[in-house]
Amino acid sequence: MYDRLKGFRDFYPEEMAARRAVIDTLEDAAARYGFREIDTPALERTEMYVDKSGEGIVEELYAFEDQGGREVSLTPELTPTVARMVVAKQQALSKPIKWVSTRPFWRYEQVQQGRFREFYQTNVDIFGSAAPEADAEILAFAADALTDLGLTDDDFEFRVSHRDILGELFRAFDADVDERDAIRAVDKREKVDRGEYLGLLSDAGLSYDQAESFDDLVTAADLDEIAEFGGSEVEAAVGNLRNVLDAAADFGAGEFCEVSLSTARGLDYYTGVVFECFDSTGEVSRSVFGGGRYDDLIESFGGQPTPAVGVAPGLAPLSLLCQRAGVWPEESLATDYYVLTVGDTRDVAARIARDLRGGGNVVEVDVSDRSFGAQMNYADGVNAETVVIVGERDLENGEVTVKDMASGDQTTVPAESFPGDARSPTFADFE
Amino acid sequence: MYDRLKGFRDFYPEEMAARRAVIDTLEDAAARYGFREIDTPALERTEMYVDKSGEGIVEELYAFEDQGGREVSLTPELTPTVARMVVAKQQALSKPIKWVSTRPFWRYEQVQQGRFREFYQTNVDIFGSAAPEADAEILAFAADALTDLGLTDDDFEFRVSHRDILGELFRAFDADVDERDAIRAVDKREKVDRGEYLGLLSDAGLSYDQAESFDDLVTAADLDEIAEFGGSEVEAAVGNLRNVLDAAADFGAGEFCEVSLSTARGLDYYTGVVFECFDSTGEVSRSVFGGGRYDDLIESFGGQPTPAVGVAPGLAPLSLLCQRAGVWPEESLATDYYVLTVGDTRDVAARIARDLRGGGNVVEVDVSDRSFGAQMNYADGVNAETVVIVGERDLENGEVTVKDMASGDQTTVPAESFPGDARSPTFADFE
Repeated sequence: MYDRLKGFRDFYPEEMAARRAVIDTLEDAAARYGFREIDTPALERTEMYVDKSGEGIVEELYAFEDQGGREVSLTPELTPTVARMVVAKQQALSKPIKWVSTRPFWRYEQVQQGRFREFYQTNVDIFGSAAPEADAEILAFAADALTDLGLTDDDFEFRVSHRDILGELFRAFDADVDERDAIRAVDKREKVDRGEYLGLLSDAGLSYDQAESFDDLVTAADLDEIAEFGGSEVEAAVGNLRNVLDAAADFGAGEFCEVSLSTARGLDYYTGVVFECFDSTGEVSRSVFGGGRYDDLIESFGGQPTPAVGVAPGLAPLSLLCQRAGVWPEESLATDYYVLTVGDTRDVAARIARDLRGGGNVVEVDVSDRSFGAQMNYADGVNAETVVIVGERDLENGEVTVKDMASGDQTTVPAESFPGDARSPTFADFE
Repeated sequence: MYDRLKGFRDFYPEEMAARRAVIDTLEDAAARYGFREIDTPALERTEMYVDKSGEGIVEELYAFEDQGGREVSLTPELTPTVARMVVAKQQALSKPIKWVSTRPFWRYEQVQQGRFREFYQTNVDIFGSAAPEADAEILAFAADALTDLGLTDDDFEFRVSHRDILGELFRAFDADVDERDAIRAVDKREKVDRGEYLGLLSDAGLSYDQAESFDDLVTAADLDEIAEFGGSEVEAAVGNLRNVLDAAADFGAGEFCEVSLSTARGLDYYTGVVFECFDSTGEVSRSVFGGGRYDDLIESFGGQPTPAVGVAPGLAPLSLLCQRAGVWPEESLATDYYVLTVGDTRDVAARIARDLRGGGNVVEVDVSDRSFGAQMNYADGVNAETVVIVGERDLENGEVTVKDMASGDQTTVPAESFPGDARSPTFADFE
């Protein structure tokens, strides 16, 4: 007997039915906004990740040398791959480019609740627009997807921030600030105590007083005050954030957005608006997912300068939120019909099953040469709504029995006229 | 600029739309038979493949040592994984177990037409039934899937064989035959010349005369003659093959099946009925896909003896057949509406777009702050059926313009009542 690898999961049908319902909901929401499905390789050259994130990333990767001597990695995220794809067909692709895909990614990291080594994300991105409507459409898609899942504004919120507000604020202080370290410090604000947080800011170059002023500005989140403090560059960033929020309100996502400047997102490549989705009740304590603008990445991959913005809900953290809110889909099978054979009636049963499948129904028949009772048990186990009993004796009278599994009621109907013209006839149609 | 790995593919939206349509068709056909979706890891322990296929398999694998020192491989096929999953929950799973999944697999091999290092398959399997109806249901699913794609019995055929007929025939000769080598020789019959084929049979232990007799029997495919020649074991296998074909006929797949005993399938783990799907015109010269019975695998994986039968259409060879037959879906985008803004009309345009999306439509709006002409070009590029023009001047009169993109016809309608109660109103509803 072989064991499964740690951090990897087998999804059996019941659990998969719920996951499929959630993935379909996310993808349907994206499709209605005109995001187009793409599909992408599971392996890429390792250098793509090292160039983007530094040698340190290799420890978190499933990286290896292939039989042809290439250094390759299982893709830990989609963004570098879609950037590569945009660059490869830059001239041919009309802008804005709007892509969606759902697939697994892999990172070698500690396994914990809601975090696995193989994890699934739905990536949704817009390339080629710097306009605030692009950021807003990403927020609106995310809001629609979550409300389609049954979540409400009591369940989730988008904490929206802006990298340039933070960056320009740092520059507005009379200090030599390492912006990257400072942004990382902000990203840790909620995860460490206040002393450690201020210490990280001062490691990044702010004096202790400056760090306190910075934190006061950021937590008050008074955009007028911030614009006034920081000068024209901060003003421009504040203006962009406001434009995005206005567009998001027009697009129907306003009620879910709140300004939260201490939301910084850890990833280095973000450039403008960034946001994270949180459980409003706080019961799921970590960010559920996040997104934002990354206007420099395509150029750094060798392409024409191309603004970009995206979001990538992960299925595992999303399932924690949905389960907390009581909207995770039921983990059970659904079957429209079981066509049960008693005696030598396979030809008639098969004809009925085919006709019912022609109506788009899920229809099972006996493929195990089993008894009436065993077939009925199986039909019950797959939650068949209706069982059609095709028995030798009934057939002598040209009849089959239609049984409603919920009530146990049954009636006989002429075999020849079943299912007839109805797509999905049930007991109720014959009583 | 980074390059893609050899044998891996990027699927851009147009091509992906066609692939998605084909995958949906396969999965819908499987769902109607009550096959239940599962999902499975991309990585497994390498020993699982070595134990099943020998050390030689490692050369064809993306095999490596992970950061934790485990020998792992990218899954080259699904069967060992589903066997592992069946064994892991043997007691809890009610039989028959009927599973379906579509996902990529990986093999390090020579790239050629219709063969890639990353390739997609839809795997459909039944565990727990030795009855001929199980084999027949797999054939019937495959036939339904292909006819749903628009293929007819002029396009494809299932060449059906039986491992035990071949095995018992070898045993019926007075010779010391290595059955595995002999089956492999049969599998090569169509790929090598007659001399080499007979040579391979004689390497496997038949004399030259026996090899010729064997080949005569196999190619004549007269089941009565074969049953008579081989004794009771061959007779039993012939009986099983006939029962499967009878059931397949009842299940509606009869017209696609023909007995072809020289179809042996290369994989060693098949045990009973095996079959391959071929292009009837021969234009696609290789087998499109294949399947069959593998009753011993679960036990060899440490489980209770559990009969099994399955099929795994691959998307790349299937696309060759569909393209040859002219039924590969159109590689193009589909968009129901583009809501075009002229001037400061974003709020009204956004409201209309949301209402249309509420009706399940694919609706794009401007997210790039572009001119009328640029928006119209984009709408044309995504094949929008209807463009709703929300212009400042029209809105002063409380109107928007509805334009049919195919004919170019347009008319004004009251903005407030659009889209109204209709889910998908078009120009034709207002003219």
